Amino acid sequence: MAGEPLYERLAEHYRRIISAGTLLPGDRMPSVRAFMSQHGVSLSTAIQTFRRLEDTGWCEAKPRSGYFVRSRASLALDALPETDGPPLSVEPPFAGLHERVSRVIDRGNAAVDALNLGGASASAALYPTERLQALAIRLLRRQPTLLTDAGRVGGSLEFRQAMAKRALSYGVAVSPDDVLSTSGGVDAVNLALRAVARPGDTIAIESPAFFGLIQLLESLGLRALEIPASPTTGLSVEALEVALTAYPDIRAVVVVPNLQNPLGSVMPDERKAALVALCASRGVAVIEDEPYRELVEAPQTVKPVKAWDRDGTVIYCPSFNKVLAPGMRLGWMSAGRWHARAKMLKFAQSRHNAALLQAVAAEFVGSGAFDRHLHRFREQLRVQRDATIDAIARHFPAGTRMNRPPGGMLLWIALPDGVHSDALFDAALAHGVRIAPGSIFSNSDRFDAYIRIGCPQTFDATQEAAIETLGRLAREAVAAA
Amino acid sequence: MAGEPLYERLAEHYRRIISAGTLLPGDRMPSVRAFMSQHGVSLSTAIQTFRRLEDTGWCEAKPRSGYFVRSRASLALDALPETDGPPLSVEPPFAGLHERVSRVIDRGNAAVDALNLGGASASAALYPTERLQALAIRLLRRQPTLLTDAGRVGGSLEFRQAMAKRALSYGVAVSPDDVLSTSGGVDAVNLALRAVARPGDTIAIESPAFFGLIQLLESLGLRALEIPASPTTGLSVEALEVALTAYPDIRAVVVVPNLQNPLGSVMPDERKAALVALCASRGVAVIEDEPYRELVEAPQTVKPVKAWDRDGTVIYCPSFNKVLAPGMRLGWMSAGRWHARAKMLKFAQSRHNAALLQAVAAEFVGSGAFDRHLHRFREQLRVQRDATIDAIARHFPAGTRMNRPPGGMLLWIALPDGVHSDALFDAALAHGVRIAPGSIFSNSDRFDAYIRIGCPQTFDATQEAAIETLGRLAREAVAAA
Repeated sequence: MAGEPLYERLAEHYRRIISAGTLLPGDRMPSVRAFMSQHGVSLSTAIQTFRRLEDTGWCEAKPRSGYFVRSRASLALDALPETDGPPLSVEPPFAGLHERVSRVIDRGNAAVDALNLGGASASAALYPTERLQALAIRLLRRQPTLLTDAGRVGGSLEFRQAMAKRALSYGVAVSPDDVLSTSGGVDAVNLALRAVARPGDTIAIESPAFFGLIQLLESLGLRALEIPASPTTGLSVEALEVALTAYPDIRAVVVVPNLQNPLGSVMPDERKAALVALCASRGVAVIEDEPYRELVEAPQTVKPVKAWDRDGTVIYCPSFNKVLAPGMRLGWMSAGRWHARAKMLKFAQSRHNAALLQAVAAEFVGSGAFDRHLHRFREQLRVQRDATIDAIARHFPAGTRMNRPPGGMLLWIALPDGVHSDALFDAALAHGVRIAPGSIFSNSDRFDAYIRIGCPQTFDATQEAAIETLGRLAREAVAAA
Repeated sequence: MAGEPLYERLAEHYRRIISAGTLLPGDRMPSVRAFMSQHGVSLSTAIQTFRRLEDTGWCEAKPRSGYFVRSRASLALDALPETDGPPLSVEPPFAGLHERVSRVIDRGNAAVDALNLGGASASAALYPTERLQALAIRLLRRQPTLLTDAGRVGGSLEFRQAMAKRALSYGVAVSPDDVLSTSGGVDAVNLALRAVARPGDTIAIESPAFFGLIQLLESLGLRALEIPASPTTGLSVEALEVALTAYPDIRAVVVVPNLQNPLGSVMPDERKAALVALCASRGVAVIEDEPYRELVEAPQTVKPVKAWDRDGTVIYCPSFNKVLAPGMRLGWMSAGRWHARAKMLKFAQSRHNAALLQAVAAEFVGSGAFDRHLHRFREQLRVQRDATIDAIARHFPAGTRMNRPPGGMLLWIALPDGVHSDALFDAALAHGVRIAPGSIFSNSDRFDAYIRIGCPQTFDATQEAAIETLGRLAREAVAAA
């Protein structure tokens, strides 16, 4: 205990109180203010403590109400273990996951009737479909030439202004000239990688990482160096520092600091600051992929790493696919020191984005409607996530471990010894359930015992049955091992 | 005369008849059928003859009426000379035009009040703005989730079906599975280049070539080998054959067979067939960029090179930016032998395109509305082109040479000795007129005496004054030389 950080010791204190029944499920936890004065700690320690309790399933945040003790069912699962990165090799391998991922995606797509728990997009019902539809119609009426006018290189001024203004609200100061519209986050990360690296260069990524990033690196002929990431606090900056010393040809580190995919981790502020400081001192770009930040449930605004950037080290790539409208394929980037090069590459590669979509996003994000949607959306996702986790706790074998991510729609689950995710993927698909096997989230085999389950749909009997099926298949695999 | 092809001799025959006043401006030329029986020649020779007469400004096609003798003013300009390619070097240079192009584009964009004769997009007034607006609104009403549903990898089925069906109508047999939606033509050509080549490889291109292609090659670290292209018949397949032998590391040739930018040339059918046969036999990809084919004015449907493809040698990249709606940024590709790789790269790089835009294009192109628009659009462009050429003939110095392209909105003009396009660009911009200098259409300096003028706007007194200004500046440059 002595070497543990203060927030960890405080969290343990509350775990004992709850286990002892002093605080019961549904009880309100102390307010942050009360907590600070009671324990004589800073705001950031208080928040870290609550987040740690939340991550490990002991309490939950309710917007504008504070933290509450969680129900018992949620406590049945142990938290995820920390994992190490792969052993450092003389030369990091070229990313080479495409065949594995293709097999999973092709097999999954072929099973058209399967219930898809492997995806990461919510159904249209959870997005502001009617509002966006009405807005698009209104804009088309107001500007009939939205489809036929040649657009502006880099994006329309109104889009760039709206994005810069929104960014200011969460601590990122960029001017409209620093904003470049992109076709969603993948387009932006692709441009960022092309701006900073050449084929054969090494890119540091989180381990585990979103398989789409590993495919992207592969398509660009880049080497991927996997850096350990904690299931609660994300990328290990310490491990990155060692890696930057060992591999001087690392050009960039790609991070998803808020609700990492698949971990669901959120980097604490001091870790974000340390990451930027480290990379700035080494001249290495930080490519910040940000599809999910707006989905973090937290009492305070969670900032992107870009908020700590002082010299253009961070290439910031937020997108709207997951938080606003999957069908719009829209995002933007602010590429810091590499902005002129990114803009040139975007122009050379695919020109600007459709003006209509930029206009819809500019108007919606610039109005209060976006925040109202996000508020509702986070609530819905929380309900779905809780229901899914409770079902997992009821149906999965003993020894299953997972965290309770502070938002979003992805759950990262460690299965007991003996269960292999590829085999479980095949067995589940044969039973009409599609999942994402852990094997596609790394070039290594470190996550073969993991699966990622999405909970982007309203939880109903179909979902319950699918989780039950998965749990049964996992139990059978444990028994056979 | 003896060594000239038959159609050239027949064209010369008619030039003499017109010069002698036997046929007067406005007179109807013989019908293709009458021409064939009168001269005892094949359909293709008859069409080549008329096209040659049209290219050189002696007659013009009027849709559904036949060919007519042109007015005198149009005859004042000599046809463009054929140009050689740059001397073959041991290693083709890496494309390195970006700075030159950037200077031209940045200076041009900064001159916001200048009349833009340097662009290649028509004004929204010439596109079917109201119809597309109404269609988009109707589709949004019918499918409210068009913006919020996650789209389908590779493009929606209805889009791919509509494109495959349209392609069949002009001789290209592809299935919906062979169609991949892209963000316009540049996105497609970028994916095609990435599918077939690696950095350092050599790509054969037409000389002159669209500067955007040279920038794209530069951004991908590819070498550009410029192959001579005729101002009337496009890429020299003979020169390409020599180049393929001299440079075994050529991976692909990028061509714009129909209304090449900037030449306005259209490759005759036999040349298209020869290109495909040559590249198929050498295992070299043909990347066919096709922004303008639908704008060719010809009595018969003009086919893309892809129509001659039998083994997947041709990567076909048509787009809608120039012919339907600049603001939609939509196109597609069918990548032959490289289709699976192109699809993987598209997914890895930027995912699919916005579903709404695909739906609009599918419905519009699948209906008769597209052909009706194209019919009107070609007519309008012809009127604008003719008026612009007549103004050039009146105002430009003696020795100015240009062809009369069989469609489109681009005019490629050779200035007399002593005029340099960069200096003319600067002088014209100072006088409020923006043009595209020939220097940006090649890595060499072969086209420094050329300029490209667009005529995508209705010709009025402003345009007339701009052409007059350009002509005066060119005459001054000739006098000073």
